[in-house]
Amino acid sequence: MNDTASHQPASGRTRVRRVAENARYDRATLHAIIDAAYLCHVAFADDKGTHNIPTACWRMEDHLYIHGSNGGRMVKWLGQGTQACVTITHLDGLVLARSAFNHSMNYRSAMVYGRFEPVADKHAALDALMNHIALGRQAEIRAGNDKEFAATTVLRIALDEAACKVRSGAPVDDAEDMQQPVWAGVLPLVQVRGAPVADPLNTAATPGYVAAWAAQTA
Amino acid sequence: MNDTASHQPASGRTRVRRVAENARYDRATLHAIIDAAYLCHVAFADDKGTHNIPTACWRMEDHLYIHGSNGGRMVKWLGQGTQACVTITHLDGLVLARSAFNHSMNYRSAMVYGRFEPVADKHAALDALMNHIALGRQAEIRAGNDKEFAATTVLRIALDEAACKVRSGAPVDDAEDMQQPVWAGVLPLVQVRGAPVADPLNTAATPGYVAAWAAQTA
Repeated sequence: MNDTASHQPASGRTRVRRVAENARYDRATLHAIIDAAYLCHVAFADDKGTHNIPTACWRMEDHLYIHGSNGGRMVKWLGQGTQACVTITHLDGLVLARSAFNHSMNYRSAMVYGRFEPVADKHAALDALMNHIALGRQAEIRAGNDKEFAATTVLRIALDEAACKVRSGAPVDDAEDMQQPVWAGVLPLVQVRGAPVADPLNTAATPGYVAAWAAQTA
Repeated sequence: MNDTASHQPASGRTRVRRVAENARYDRATLHAIIDAAYLCHVAFADDKGTHNIPTACWRMEDHLYIHGSNGGRMVKWLGQGTQACVTITHLDGLVLARSAFNHSMNYRSAMVYGRFEPVADKHAALDALMNHIALGRQAEIRAGNDKEFAATTVLRIALDEAACKVRSGAPVDDAEDMQQPVWAGVLPLVQVRGAPVADPLNTAATPGYVAAWAAQTA
């Protein structure tokens, strides 16, 4: 928060107005929220209306990347430079206050406005996606062939017009509600790793990143 | 899937074209995905562009509900009947295939198209939200007062034009890739409940729904 060198000015769209004290405009927060995500929701409008599509995402430097099949509606319209809004939300808990009105959620969300552009170096970008999923796996798999690469579009959006909102911690109640005889606190929600499930036909040894995943299961 | 009485026909917008075998148009799947969610992403366009806002959601019969402060952009535009697309996505795992191209994710997603309408009976709707968060809590808290209700708008969207996509299970590889010497399988992701964190100033006994939450922590 104190790194003014990486501070992004809020635009008319990204200036947070509701509960403005939860707004974050620094790059470290933005990068952390994106890096913790495997998917984002991409909103855009076409001739059929406004759409909101969940899709895999990853970050390289100051761009958020997505990919898709050439034939899809999302790739077609976003590839033409249609304005988009990409949102990522991590839900961290339910906040139980003493009054109905002060109930809330703990969360970390990032919102990016802009226009996607096609990525020329699809190999580097999709390698980065694989590294985001499982570092080291790219060297083990059957890499994409020319036909597969030709059928896939990779798009990126600059993180220039972006804002985050983060809420954490205890409920905030009105002073006159503090004597209400009701439990107050947070019911946390956490995304955890489940035990890896090998394919029934798997014959390969367990690689390090799968062992590491197993070691971090709840 | 076999309950044709509750089957919804796909519209031009909701007919799933990408990996169409993952599409689900039945109400049971739609309701289950919404009921498992605490938040949704709402896409809509206003005079500033297309937006994508995470917000709390809940279901009553065949409508999805949201609420917000009267002064907010989302409430203002959606309350006027701006077309919206609401998406909920539960991520269930990373699907590691033998080729780069066949990597995927396991997920349950629901997409609802339509226009929100203001809800007249805000008391009943917000009681339902509280029941969704913690059944039984509504009777314990300090209920909303006239000023708080007056400052809050409740909106709902019919589940008429909706579609779900669900992927589960093992990777699907091309036959010619089955001998690739690489681990194949699923790395599951699960949203779990963390141990309740009482407010530092809490003096109330632990209610049943908090005890139940604690009993279900990972």
